[in-house]
Amino acid sequence: MARQLDLFFFIGSTYTYLTVSRVQDAASRESISIRWRPFSVRTIMAEQNNVPFRGKPVKMKYMWRDLERRARRHGVPFESIPHYPVDPDELANRVAVVASLDGWCPEYTIATYRAWFLENKVPGDLQYLPALLIQLGRDPEVTIGRANTQEIRDRYASETQVARELGIFGSPTFVSGSEIFWGDDRLEDAIDWCRSKPER
Amino acid sequence: MARQLDLFFFIGSTYTYLTVSRVQDAASRESISIRWRPFSVRTIMAEQNNVPFRGKPVKMKYMWRDLERRARRHGVPFESIPHYPVDPDELANRVAVVASLDGWCPEYTIATYRAWFLENKVPGDLQYLPALLIQLGRDPEVTIGRANTQEIRDRYASETQVARELGIFGSPTFVSGSEIFWGDDRLEDAIDWCRSKPER
Repeated sequence: MARQLDLFFFIGSTYTYLTVSRVQDAASRESISIRWRPFSVRTIMAEQNNVPFRGKPVKMKYMWRDLERRARRHGVPFESIPHYPVDPDELANRVAVVASLDGWCPEYTIATYRAWFLENKVPGDLQYLPALLIQLGRDPEVTIGRANTQEIRDRYASETQVARELGIFGSPTFVSGSEIFWGDDRLEDAIDWCRSKPER
Repeated sequence: MARQLDLFFFIGSTYTYLTVSRVQDAASRESISIRWRPFSVRTIMAEQNNVPFRGKPVKMKYMWRDLERRARRHGVPFESIPHYPVDPDELANRVAVVASLDGWCPEYTIATYRAWFLENKVPGDLQYLPALLIQLGRDPEVTIGRANTQEIRDRYASETQVARELGIFGSPTFVSGSEIFWGDDRLEDAIDWCRSKPER
């Protein structure tokens, strides 16, 4: 079986933009497959009183500047600081759950982040979401309807519970076995760790 | 004039152990000189309600594991999780201010961190500090006396004010001109930034 790295992510995390833009190339160079696992980092952060930016303008300002520099470093396009925070009802993330079950999670998440960062089209906003789904060849009404079902809410909650049990507290987090690597800036560490394990 | 990177740091920051262990080699490979600038990140973090680990056991546990892995990655020795937090009166840091004025800040800070991480000798603790100063060829009584003077307290506060005005909120932070880079994991970004500037 090929090596696999789990990517736990939350649409709305800022640095996750860098990860969704570069993880597939970085992993495929090492013949590692990525399993995309949306979860509610917001729920876990609230439980842990982990508030990285709200009410912290100095740290927030730095984050955007750092993200812009890191984007340039990795060849990821960056236009300007987009609307933030986003997806109050976590609809964008629940659509990602649908997409993860149906096999189109990477393209949906990448398209969502590009629309957000490059065109300021806010994730999960019903003003933009249907058109984005149509672009991806999906039926907006069916997809959004499904994202609002209890089944998908339960799946989202159970993936969040898996994350919680792994000790995940931020997005993105890469998981290899029981080792977790938090942050886009740990992607290389995670890939190196995954590579160094014996093949299963 | 040679390129210079300012290193704002606080003895007591955990990841700063990695930085003090590797910054000189990393910088000298690029002919960059490092100016060591101790400051009270604790004061700034309190002002900004920035509490990274206290009351956050999940994040704290991850931090130590990540630090251990990063140490291995960089060839920095790591024994076990040392006593934490440390230096409640910031004496270790005020001694660093004395050392920075007198030209022995790198060796003092490196020795302090090694004693802390490898022998669990807590920074600033009067049980260990005099012997450490003697090892460095310094008079403990004179040095500690000076670290407790108003002059040194003022210098420490004024360096903290410089950091505050630069938008610094964590340790270590690397500064090149008006660009700040937070975290040991931004050392390479800071060095590349510094290299790419025209020589002054």
